[in-house]
Amino acid sequence: MAAREATLTKPPGSLGRLEAAVQWLALWQGKNPPRLGTIEILVFAGNHGVTAQGVSAYPAEVTAQMVANFAAGGAAINQLAQLSGAELRVIALDLDDPTADFTKQPAMDEAEFLDAVSAGYDALSLEADIVVLGEMGIGNTTAASAIAAALFGGGGARFAGQGTGVDQRGLTRKRAAIDAGLARHSAILGDPLRIAAAFGGRELAAILGAALAARHRRIPTLLDGFVCTAAVAPWAKLRTGALDHALAGHMSAEAGHRLLLQELGLHPLLDLGMRLGEGSGAAVAVLILRAALACHTGMATFKQAQVSEKDA
Amino acid sequence: MAAREATLTKPPGSLGRLEAAVQWLALWQGKNPPRLGTIEILVFAGNHGVTAQGVSAYPAEVTAQMVANFAAGGAAINQLAQLSGAELRVIALDLDDPTADFTKQPAMDEAEFLDAVSAGYDALSLEADIVVLGEMGIGNTTAASAIAAALFGGGGARFAGQGTGVDQRGLTRKRAAIDAGLARHSAILGDPLRIAAAFGGRELAAILGAALAARHRRIPTLLDGFVCTAAVAPWAKLRTGALDHALAGHMSAEAGHRLLLQELGLHPLLDLGMRLGEGSGAAVAVLILRAALACHTGMATFKQAQVSEKDA
Repeated sequence: MAAREATLTKPPGSLGRLEAAVQWLALWQGKNPPRLGTIEILVFAGNHGVTAQGVSAYPAEVTAQMVANFAAGGAAINQLAQLSGAELRVIALDLDDPTADFTKQPAMDEAEFLDAVSAGYDALSLEADIVVLGEMGIGNTTAASAIAAALFGGGGARFAGQGTGVDQRGLTRKRAAIDAGLARHSAILGDPLRIAAAFGGRELAAILGAALAARHRRIPTLLDGFVCTAAVAPWAKLRTGALDHALAGHMSAEAGHRLLLQELGLHPLLDLGMRLGEGSGAAVAVLILRAALACHTGMATFKQAQVSEKDA
Repeated sequence: MAAREATLTKPPGSLGRLEAAVQWLALWQGKNPPRLGTIEILVFAGNHGVTAQGVSAYPAEVTAQMVANFAAGGAAINQLAQLSGAELRVIALDLDDPTADFTKQPAMDEAEFLDAVSAGYDALSLEADIVVLGEMGIGNTTAASAIAAALFGGGGARFAGQGTGVDQRGLTRKRAAIDAGLARHSAILGDPLRIAAAFGGRELAAILGAALAARHRRIPTLLDGFVCTAAVAPWAKLRTGALDHALAGHMSAEAGHRLLLQELGLHPLLDLGMRLGEGSGAAVAVLILRAALACHTGMATFKQAQVSEKDA
């Protein structure tokens, strides 16, 4: 891989992150050249009891309505999956049974949490060349902010943003709900997996499970935005290098994402001010991987093209 | 355009720069929805007398060799043009007759400069929906750095970088050549077009001409990296809003590009550490425009999908 890269008709390193992306794909796939034949986008959906606290700009029934929209092909992720040549699979997790309101009790007990992790683990196809992880869940930026604050400190004020577009009063309620949750669950804040269960939703737990499955199968993984990053953050906190097989597809406009990426040492491929979720930012990043691979596999070598190499 | 955008099944603004890009395309094309049917990549190539000063890591004959590589389909831009569904046209400008060494005399006299501007102006097809501007020319980051320094101050130390990969001694020579040119042409540093002629190359002048043609025909334009941005900078310095029809496709890893974009108030779509030229960064940015348009034209409205809208 690196040997071929060095012979291609360009100054060494001049394709920047495109070169690094090909190297990363090849490393994890163990294939030279790497492949982007089967691209799997997994979008997990869940509902959140904390919406009772008035933390979102949209009513909770929108989660199921958007799942129907995914099935009908009308959402942004449908268009982006088609454009990037990816297969989209949507996994709705008990939408009629929201997780508990984390200001009152843990969102999930251990069994519920592990069920959701397993659902995510099992959702990944064996034959995927890469997997893109995304989510849908009204209220889930509140869950994500709470997880980030529980893991890295700073409370609701540090990580909570406007999500789908909550107004200033809603944002105040969102921060208060996070702080109430942090206070209620103060006893478990040293335990990343209990944090994931106490504040997360089923879709976040499933993303964690899918990321684990991808690691075990050495499938390169693109993370979407804030919620997706928060979903895998507990694992990263537990184990150094846990996310080496993953790239942050983009930097979301959601305020907490930049901070969380910094905490995790992740450098997003794109920064387009997107904040939709659904895997949309990571699906756009698939196009960058396609560009990278097209250059690596299609370019001529200096010798083939009879181009003079760099002065010695 | 904006009316449809507001009805699509996503929180308003949540596609960030994708939404802005569609708006920009529609505005300049005067089409609703905008179109990406014919995408034209124009790569202009030229040779530079200043290479006599030992400013590049590659010998000057590489310009013609790379033009042959473009024709044979072996360069990065060939792969990226194919991936993005764009037509690639390469215009080689008197490669056997390099511009004069700007440390000794103006690179071009007025007639040569206008010939090259005209070649660029005429190269643009009438039917292009968007145009991507790129370049190839050994020594042309030296020309670009000199133009940037002449327009915005700071001398060779401020804008010169490693280009295709010149070593530290080469970089010292590059900076010295720029400073020598600035001293020699000090009398014309208040005149942006004379700066373009004195320091530029034919490919830079042609890019300026093509950008002018695109403006007159209201064709949205993607600029590639440092050289391309420097090529249009004299015009931007002359006329406020000159580049409103243009987007910076990416931020190059070439040191001076960030500074130059800041001087011009341009916000690049991508930042992937690329520094190849050939229009390669802007060609990757075409994929972002395709993603933007796919979402805008393909998504369902709230009404179509029966999704509840934001709480009033």
